[in-house]
Amino acid sequence: MSVSMFTKIMRGEIPCHKIYEDELVFAFLDIFPLAPGHTLVIPKEPARTLAELSDESAAAVGRALPRLCRAVAQATGVTDCNILQNNGESAHQAVFHVHFHIIPKPDASQGLGIQWPAGKLDSEQGKAMAQQIADALK
Amino acid sequence: MSVSMFTKIMRGEIPCHKIYEDELVFAFLDIFPLAPGHTLVIPKEPARTLAELSDESAAAVGRALPRLCRAVAQATGVTDCNILQNNGESAHQAVFHVHFHIIPKPDASQGLGIQWPAGKLDSEQGKAMAQQIADALK
Repeated sequence: MSVSMFTKIMRGEIPCHKIYEDELVFAFLDIFPLAPGHTLVIPKEPARTLAELSDESAAAVGRALPRLCRAVAQATGVTDCNILQNNGESAHQAVFHVHFHIIPKPDASQGLGIQWPAGKLDSEQGKAMAQQIADALK
Repeated sequence: MSVSMFTKIMRGEIPCHKIYEDELVFAFLDIFPLAPGHTLVIPKEPARTLAELSDESAAAVGRALPRLCRAVAQATGVTDCNILQNNGESAHQAVFHVHFHIIPKPDASQGLGIQWPAGKLDSEQGKAMAQQIADALK
């Protein structure tokens, strides 16, 4: 497997604006920000997608997110934000190393733009789907 | 504080298509799905936003996400997906109880629509911002 850009960043082979590091987690500024303070939070584990990430790394990244949200809000003065993590090219993933975006939403013209083409869940289909997912968890 | 719709769902006062539950985490189908299998993963802790969530609950939700991603992918046959968690009305939050969306991306017409008005990070501004966020973490 080739090494991702983010692994090179963690190794110091590509420079970054580093924010935080612990045994399992690394955070730095996105160089193509959607708004000031746009931060990337990644596991050190080189998983390509969230589905491939270990429980331990996923818990560590999860634990870091609220603290980083508070710090980003304090530094930017913007409390509203989106957390986004994309899996697969069709879902807008560009670097194949798991990364959570913390994207401040200062106003309508900055931050993440969201389109929400929601449907309505059919009750019978929902019952069957929930059962299928629950079974797949086992 | 008034009780959120999601607390009522967890109490069984509002029905849902439940997928998963443990001591700290609850998951169920979104009744307004962006695609089949659209799942909500929430902490039992009634935090309004991620910034207000405890480390323990955040780690528990984080740990649950990869397993739920795998189960949703297995049940739907769709591996690409977006994980989205919104904080604040301007960032598209509608229910004020922390929730992570797992949104499968079966094709361009379904799933999360993303607009990405990215800028380019100025190196000096990036250095100052990273330092401000790192200081705020302390």
